[in-house]
Amino acid sequence: MKIAVLGGDGFCGWPTALHLSDAGHEVHIIDNLSRRWIDTELGVQSLTPMDSIQERCRIWKQETGRSLQFHLLDLARDYDRLRQWLAEHRPEAIVHFAEQRAAPYSMKSDRHKVYTVNNNVNATHNLLTALVETGIDAHLVHLGTMGVYGYSSVGAPIPEGYLDVDIDTPTGKKGQEILYPTRPGSVYHMTKSLDQILFQFYAQNDGLRITDLHQGIVWGTHTEQTRRHEQLINRFDYDGDYGTVLNRFLIQAAIGYPLTVHGTGGQTRAFIHLQDSVRCVALALSDAPQAGQRVKIFNQMTETHRVRDLAELVARQTGAEVAYLPNPRKEAAENDLLVKNEQFLALGLKPTTLAEGLLAEVVEVAQKYAHRIDRSRIPAISAWTRDIGSRVETDPEHKRLKSVS
Amino acid sequence: MKIAVLGGDGFCGWPTALHLSDAGHEVHIIDNLSRRWIDTELGVQSLTPMDSIQERCRIWKQETGRSLQFHLLDLARDYDRLRQWLAEHRPEAIVHFAEQRAAPYSMKSDRHKVYTVNNNVNATHNLLTALVETGIDAHLVHLGTMGVYGYSSVGAPIPEGYLDVDIDTPTGKKGQEILYPTRPGSVYHMTKSLDQILFQFYAQNDGLRITDLHQGIVWGTHTEQTRRHEQLINRFDYDGDYGTVLNRFLIQAAIGYPLTVHGTGGQTRAFIHLQDSVRCVALALSDAPQAGQRVKIFNQMTETHRVRDLAELVARQTGAEVAYLPNPRKEAAENDLLVKNEQFLALGLKPTTLAEGLLAEVVEVAQKYAHRIDRSRIPAISAWTRDIGSRVETDPEHKRLKSVS
Ligand SMILES: NC(=O)c1ccc[n+]([C@@H]2O[C@H](COP(=O)([O-])OP(=O)(O)OC[C@H]3O[C@@H](n4cnc5c(N)ncnc54)[C@H](O)[C@@H]3O)[C@@H](O)[C@H]2O)c1
Ligand SMILES: NC(=O)c1ccc[n+]([C@@H]2O[C@H](COP(=O)([O-])OP(=O)(O)OC[C@H]3O[C@@H](n4cnc5c(N)ncnc54)[C@H](O)[C@@H]3O)[C@@H](O)[C@H]2O)c1
Repeated sequence: MKIAVLGGDGFCGWPTALHLSDAGHEVHIIDNLSRRWIDTELGVQSLTPMDSIQERCRIWKQETGRSLQFHLLDLARDYDRLRQWLAEHRPEAIVHFAEQRAAPYSMKSDRHKVYTVNNNVNATHNLLTALVETGIDAHLVHLGTMGVYGYSSVGAPIPEGYLDVDIDTPTGKKGQEILYPTRPGSVYHMTKSLDQILFQFYAQNDGLRITDLHQGIVWGTHTEQTRRHEQLINRFDYDGDYGTVLNRFLIQAAIGYPLTVHGTGGQTRAFIHLQDSVRCVALALSDAPQAGQRVKIFNQMTETHRVRDLAELVARQTGAEVAYLPNPRKEAAENDLLVKNEQFLALGLKPTTLAEGLLAEVVEVAQKYAHRIDRSRIPAISAWTRDIGSRVETDPEHKRLKSVS
Repeated sequence: MKIAVLGGDGFCGWPTALHLSDAGHEVHIIDNLSRRWIDTELGVQSLTPMDSIQERCRIWKQETGRSLQFHLLDLARDYDRLRQWLAEHRPEAIVHFAEQRAAPYSMKSDRHKVYTVNNNVNATHNLLTALVETGIDAHLVHLGTMGVYGYSSVGAPIPEGYLDVDIDTPTGKKGQEILYPTRPGSVYHMTKSLDQILFQFYAQNDGLRITDLHQGIVWGTHTEQTRRHEQLINRFDYDGDYGTVLNRFLIQAAIGYPLTVHGTGGQTRAFIHLQDSVRCVALALSDAPQAGQRVKIFNQMTETHRVRDLAELVARQTGAEVAYLPNPRKEAAENDLLVKNEQFLALGLKPTTLAEGLLAEVVEVAQKYAHRIDRSRIPAISAWTRDIGSRVETDPEHKRLKSVS
């Protein structure tokens, strides 16, 4: 199959592109490399030394004989070139990772909020419009997040995308199927909630075939394909904006930095290992909806954990210290989270869980590249409101950690 | 009160600005005049001869002694100037009309889709971000549309914004309040559905005080204030993109053009007279939510009618012919629509209904300016999909109408 991987230079996109290429598909990567520019803006870098995307594609070809083409294109700003690219290449499937994906980055300042909304909404909408305009009937697989639901499952597992509600009418209750209601907790999560509505409309009006993967937090860094050559290594973020919770704990443990738990650590989150994330995308590609069908929504996660339990698990395994810091986010201190993921299980996913011993692998990678870490960039300081920001800044534990680094 | 009226050069914004100014408020109009540019793009003009906004403000001052300030500013493209403007003027309330508001225009082509999403989402989001950034605690009143719900009320009246749903949990049903689910039927309507999510987030995260008015189709052209001087006359759209259904029938009747009903005319829509629309905005301003409260949502409409019933009513009163044309929209041929509007009634709104004899006034205005009408711009031809477009184009009745003009 001819597949375009949008955002294929990123943390999930790169290993997905390799996985699909390895499976024999003709893979085209589209990316504007904005994530590399954001590293520059923030003055951080991937823990792992990442080559240019052009060089990575060259190495892949050299190692496997399979070609992987890179196209520099901004989906949000360059609608005309996107439409031309699609008309010329006519992909049969598209995997869309190309959005600004860090909640803390999206809350850093007014400019970051404006950028995130502008980039994510326009990237997704331009793509949908261009598909209609070029008449390309490609299956579009988009990466969304479990976070759109606001991390609360009111005691019942969050279903895969839809909810049946009863509406009282004079002639009795009438059932209606609706999108499972969202309650996004950051500007980033909000953009994924907007995406859902774009998808609903374009599936309904134009018969576009769309799958939306509501993904949990991805952990790990290697996949079968990235392990094949040192220069195929994946991006690995550790900083306070882009580093995500479990990976951050593992890196912190590797370099003897206290594990940074925000608030009570009572937040429950959904997780998935990178290798499973990549497999799930391939499974979703194999199970496209029909034109005219509703958007297919999967919960792409394999397990849920409370943040402080993860910290304690990592601390036990590695001897790391746990630091409890004020929470820069505005969110419930404690929440339960139950999630259904029956669709991927039915398609044959065999979950790789925390228990599989892969935690050690991540710690090893982190130790290998520990010299590349700027410890001062570890604390998460982007605050959800100004008030919260000043509470974070003046917290004694936060100050102590700053002096540790 | 110091009030900013965003989009104050438009059909609803101008009479609202005058109404609020007349009531003694200090009114500032912000507009990028894009609507005038769109007239130029489409090669049409307001049926009524509209002066420049600067001249209209001058006349208002001359007639009433009240000053009305105009500021040229693009909310979607010029975030920095918007923030500066707010920081400098610190309005106590903001009425936000500044969006691309025609469903047919939003479906004209890929470029029009992209423009509408870009303009509307960024205008609204920039405003919200700028309010947070400048720390201005203004009450924001936004104009949304009844159309977000997709014109179906499943037999029960559409409530004002929220729905209580029961979710099955192992320990019994658990009630949850959600935004009444939307099902937008055009790119324009979709942007209003996106706006709702932006509002929900900013009310929750930043305590912004927001009222969202889900408005029905506005008819009429004069208000108490626009009648005061010929040069205060309001914009009045008759073309296939911007003309809205009842006003279009009245104009068509005035110039002896057949009343253009799409499909069976079985669509039921909500309506409100312009004078009531203006009053509702003032009522909403007087009833601001508290910080931390959920977004206040009003259904701003006074009656619902089936389109073919309206056509027949106007035909009976004026002797006009009714033409049944293929529907350029993708929508249910027939729908029921029941809507709650108890909140405005409770605030004292006395609805001006079709029965009040104001239909004749609109016909008179149209007759007075009939010479300004380009009959070839009356048919609505923007089609929701390419297939529908070619059905519209080849329809014999459509061809006959084109030859009439
Ligand atoms: N990493 C996670 O834990 C996680 C969890 C849930 C969901 N997701 C989702 O998966 C997707 C990929 O996440 P990731 O971790 O790989 O992020 P990433 O930032 O590493 O990769 C995103 C890629 O998209 C590119 N991009 C962004 N905007 C673009 C534009 N306008 N035009 C072209 N390219 C653009 C970036 O340059 C980057 O290479 C995102 O949509 C994210 O929301 C990720
Ligand atoms: N007219 C109706 O029947 C109706 C019905 C329901 C809801 N509404 C809503 O009421 C609002 C006003 O409608 P209207 O009929 O007065 O529309 P309009 O097009 O006459 O007025 C909108 C005004 O906003 C301005 N504008 C648009 N984008 C802008 C931007 N980025 N920056 C600054 N100014 C911008 C335009 O120049 C125009 O003057 C809209 O939001 C519309 O969706 C209207």
